[in-house]
Amino acid sequence: MPDNKISNAKSSLISRLNRIEGQIRGIRNMIEDDKYCVDVFIQVAAAKSALNSVSALLMESHIKRCVKKAIDSGHGEEVLDELTEVMKKYFK
Amino acid sequence: MPDNKISNAKSSLISRLNRIEGQIRGIRNMIEDDKYCVDVFIQVAAAKSALNSVSALLMESHIKRCVKKAIDSGHGEEVLDELTEVMKKYFK
Amino acid sequence: MPDNKISNAKSSLISRLNRIEGQIRGIRNMIEDDKYCVDVFIQVAAAKSALNSVSALLMESHIKRCVKKAIDSGHGEEVLDELTEVMKKYFK
Amino acid sequence: MPDNKISNAKSSLISRLNRIEGQIRGIRNMIEDDKYCVDVFIQVAAAKSALNSVSALLMESHIKRCVKKAIDSGHGEEVLDELTEVMKKYFK
Repeated sequence: MPDNKISNAKSSLISRLNRIEGQIRGIRNMIEDDKYCVDVFIQVAAAKSALNSVSALLMESHIKRCVKKAIDSGHGEEVLDELTEVMKKYFK
Repeated sequence: MPDNKISNAKSSLISRLNRIEGQIRGIRNMIEDDKYCVDVFIQVAAAKSALNSVSALLMESHIKRCVKKAIDSGHGEEVLDELTEVMKKYFK
Repeated sequence: MPDNKISNAKSSLISRLNRIEGQIRGIRNMIEDDKYCVDVFIQVAAAKSALNSVSALLMESHIKRCVKKAIDSGHGEEVLDELTEVMKKYFK
Repeated sequence: MPDNKISNAKSSLISRLNRIEGQIRGIRNMIEDDKYCVDVFIQVAAAKSALNSVSALLMESHIKRCVKKAIDSGHGEEVLDELTEVMKKYFK
């Protein structure tokens, strides 16, 4: 079962995104209920930090799966150029 | 109707959060459908950027409403200390 | 000596910036000596994090000094509008 | 001259870092001269953004040079694991 690790990443990503969806809904409710802005602001920061973990997980699974697979099948060049472009956009 | 501007910010925040909730759900669907990681990654970056606009709007409405009101009623010191703490955490 | 705290912030900022200047020079030397990119990258991240602390300190001293002083002298409105603009740019 | 591109990246990095060093020194001078915090804050943001371009350039040259070379010489696995770790730290 070599796919085990992949499906682990997938299910971890899905459960994180479910939680984030709940956080976003919670933030909207706070605004509807006129909660104190600073408390809302802190929840938005928490949601952003949760999205950062999703980015990290996605990048990890991309490099460990797609990039390695592309290299093994002789398409390393393309996938590395693509990774470079994504990283460059991200750091700007 | 001095509350007009406030309710503008509120309804803008709510519609942004609704859109972000949709983005998060879309990202989860992309993962469930095994979409290409790089495409998912770019959507996560877009959601983070949308959350940044929410932070900016919240901060604007906090300073323009709560901070000014607190100052007018003689509680400026407390609300500015609180703002300092929030900013310090945010920049770290 | 009510200025003590102010000059503390100032000297702390100056010594942090001296250290950051040294970090930047160290990074340039690493590049001149063809050091391994990943090691250089990590040093750049450290310098950015040090600059974040400078931002935090500056914001703290701005709110605690300038904003409070402006409010006391009746120019609160302007200085808070300015703070809002800075924050909005920063979160975008 | 296959090294042309490499030395281009190197000289671009060095001139950027020289400029950043100047920015940092300018910021320190602003603080020594008690310049207005908001103006200093904006210069710090500019220096951070310049450091982000350095990160982007470093990452590009790392992927285009080191990662590709490591793959060609059969050490792809290690260098990709390392890249994953760096990215994960960065996004957290």
